[in-house]
Amino acid sequence: MAKTNVSAPSGFPEFSPAQQRVVQKWKRTISEIFEQHGFPMLETPLVERAENFVAKGGNPKEMYVLDRLLREDAVDQEKDQRAIRFDHTVPLALFVARNFNELSFPFRRSVIGPVLRGERAQRGRFRQFDQCDIDVIGSEKLSLANDAQMVAIIAQIFEKLMSEQKFKIKINNRKILTGFFAAFDADPTEFKKILDFVDNLEKTPNAKLAGHPIEFQERILEFVEMSGSADEILGKLKNFSDHELFQTGVAELSEVVQNLRAMGISENLWTIDLRVARGLDYYTGTVFEAIFTEHERIGSLAGGGRYDDLAEVFTGKKLPGVGISIGLTRLLWQLFDAKIISPERASSSDVIVLSRSPEVFSKSLEIGEKIRNAGIPTEVFFEPKKIQKQFDFAKKMGIPCRVIVGDDFVVECDDENLRAMISDLVK
Amino acid sequence: MAKTNVSAPSGFPEFSPAQQRVVQKWKRTISEIFEQHGFPMLETPLVERAENFVAKGGNPKEMYVLDRLLREDAVDQEKDQRAIRFDHTVPLALFVARNFNELSFPFRRSVIGPVLRGERAQRGRFRQFDQCDIDVIGSEKLSLANDAQMVAIIAQIFEKLMSEQKFKIKINNRKILTGFFAAFDADPTEFKKILDFVDNLEKTPNAKLAGHPIEFQERILEFVEMSGSADEILGKLKNFSDHELFQTGVAELSEVVQNLRAMGISENLWTIDLRVARGLDYYTGTVFEAIFTEHERIGSLAGGGRYDDLAEVFTGKKLPGVGISIGLTRLLWQLFDAKIISPERASSSDVIVLSRSPEVFSKSLEIGEKIRNAGIPTEVFFEPKKIQKQFDFAKKMGIPCRVIVGDDFVVECDDENLRAMISDLVK
Repeated sequence: MAKTNVSAPSGFPEFSPAQQRVVQKWKRTISEIFEQHGFPMLETPLVERAENFVAKGGNPKEMYVLDRLLREDAVDQEKDQRAIRFDHTVPLALFVARNFNELSFPFRRSVIGPVLRGERAQRGRFRQFDQCDIDVIGSEKLSLANDAQMVAIIAQIFEKLMSEQKFKIKINNRKILTGFFAAFDADPTEFKKILDFVDNLEKTPNAKLAGHPIEFQERILEFVEMSGSADEILGKLKNFSDHELFQTGVAELSEVVQNLRAMGISENLWTIDLRVARGLDYYTGTVFEAIFTEHERIGSLAGGGRYDDLAEVFTGKKLPGVGISIGLTRLLWQLFDAKIISPERASSSDVIVLSRSPEVFSKSLEIGEKIRNAGIPTEVFFEPKKIQKQFDFAKKMGIPCRVIVGDDFVVECDDENLRAMISDLVK
Repeated sequence: MAKTNVSAPSGFPEFSPAQQRVVQKWKRTISEIFEQHGFPMLETPLVERAENFVAKGGNPKEMYVLDRLLREDAVDQEKDQRAIRFDHTVPLALFVARNFNELSFPFRRSVIGPVLRGERAQRGRFRQFDQCDIDVIGSEKLSLANDAQMVAIIAQIFEKLMSEQKFKIKINNRKILTGFFAAFDADPTEFKKILDFVDNLEKTPNAKLAGHPIEFQERILEFVEMSGSADEILGKLKNFSDHELFQTGVAELSEVVQNLRAMGISENLWTIDLRVARGLDYYTGTVFEAIFTEHERIGSLAGGGRYDDLAEVFTGKKLPGVGISIGLTRLLWQLFDAKIISPERASSSDVIVLSRSPEVFSKSLEIGEKIRNAGIPTEVFFEPKKIQKQFDFAKKMGIPCRVIVGDDFVVECDDENLRAMISDLVK
């Protein structure tokens, strides 16, 4: 046997077959919910010109580019440097720029697929991971009802996939935060640092904000820890500061709340949380993120927000948008790791047909076809092995229903309804 | 406006939103049929160690490897060269090698996703394209019923997706071809050339086989053009040569035919065609490919075959397999180009809710929720635009049903059944 290193490169994860059944279920469900809300799947290339990724803020230190294994002999030399996508938003910006005149706005799309980042590989952080995104892009303007819809969609996804787990979608508006700081004459160049500080408060509650008097920090905390029902918080905010940007943010947040109610989204599922700022620089209005209330250390289940500028650098046009991103690989890896979810059986078959002897094999094939034609995923054990070996295989694969074909046949299922249905089909 | 080149890099295709609706339908249908036959989706990393791809025959001239845009500053230097997958079979071999002791054999998996090849970009040939594959891997042995199942699966896919197009799955066995050449004492080192010659006969029927007397070429043609029903061809083959390998191939082909009949696959859908050899070097038994009988120039719709050795170089174990590959991007690109299929409407919504005035917007949201909760993909037009603009949008997106909300509401559908159902839901 050759001494080859067959291990997967560091940071390129792979789920077990039984875990992948869960991954696929999540992808299918998320995609269905996206499409049910008018966000059809739109796949964009894995690769774009590196200069365009850099123009939209891609980190050159983490960006992968394509090279050839044999550069000199390559069948065709590409002149431009081509980089692999590190998110789905910049490829969307390029797609919109390329197809601007053919698209109708508001333009909606969903995408589920891998992105690559050359980060330092560590436990639970990967270099390749699937992201599930939707975005809606307006031409010049985009109604705040879209922001509420994002919250509604996240709620529906986690109600469907994790009904046994309590989750909460925390909502905020960046204009309230930036307006608050402006009202206190904090240096605008410090905003980012202060937002990062606020963003990290939950992780490090005793941190001090360097370069500011302790009173300033106390007023920030007083502000962001404002709590109560949505109406209570909105009422407090209306009287907290008359700074224009601040009040624009409050008005936007009120409108989002109003739309959430009109959409019938239960107030148990969302809350205003003034600490939510989201890491990314480009959010300019509504921001939100979902957490499991009983497993906060899992971190963000889904997040997103409103941005003013999708693709101005490419199109010269004002294209505001709002979107969601679910870091699926990281999230499922953590949920498996914390045993909050479990792998399913590795097989996709509900039924396996076993043959007591090679003589009945043709009959087994016919029976398999019959059950499968009724829409039930079915496999036939094809190999001429002893019946006990066939049972062992069926058990190891966790297939819940076994049809054993001999002179006659026996239907054996873990579930009585399934057994009755299969027996009916086969007889 | 910045003068940026936003075009997609050459060879990295992107379908229009309306075309992508078709692409997604194909992917979903293919995946469902794969899973119905016991082939669950198993996604393997985009990236593996380059040396392992080369060990399994990857072409170094076309192989893409990862580099960093800023190599010197990269956050973490990878020591090994990591290449991007050029097919799904070699990543499967590595997956099996990594997880050999946890897997049950026969091991089945499906995969649908992009592969990258640095080929010369040209019309209809891409550097990134989706392939839809299944493989079943045996430990030491693998029944020929698996080969028949591959043909059955291809038949079901094209019956479901292209019921209006006649297709045919051509089946052959490489042992018959290699046995035939051995029986005529042709130089074994010439086999590949002769197989390529046979493989290309349809494209260039007047070609001459260099380095062989014309009589030899005539006997080859007489052999490969053998026609008739499966039983007629098998009967002729049994008496054609008593070369051992040749007769092993004939026996295998007979067994595949027998299994196809037991599976109930109509003989209109497949045929024995001794010209089919398949390009790839590693096929050793059954080979097959599907074509549209009225659009032969579209080329192979799906193809595949049996191989003796999946991963011996990695595992030291004999792992025979049989698989299918559908080059989905290339196929759909050609079908669109030849107008054999058409784009669908760009939207995923069956219903759009329009508002005659901002005052009724909350009511529109409620109505939208009601219809969507009944499982019908529904969007609400959120922007405060004139009703005519809303109609224009609905029309451009091709959404077949419009609910217009004013003091009362009107349901307007392209389809009367849908109209009745929606009216019922909303009232």
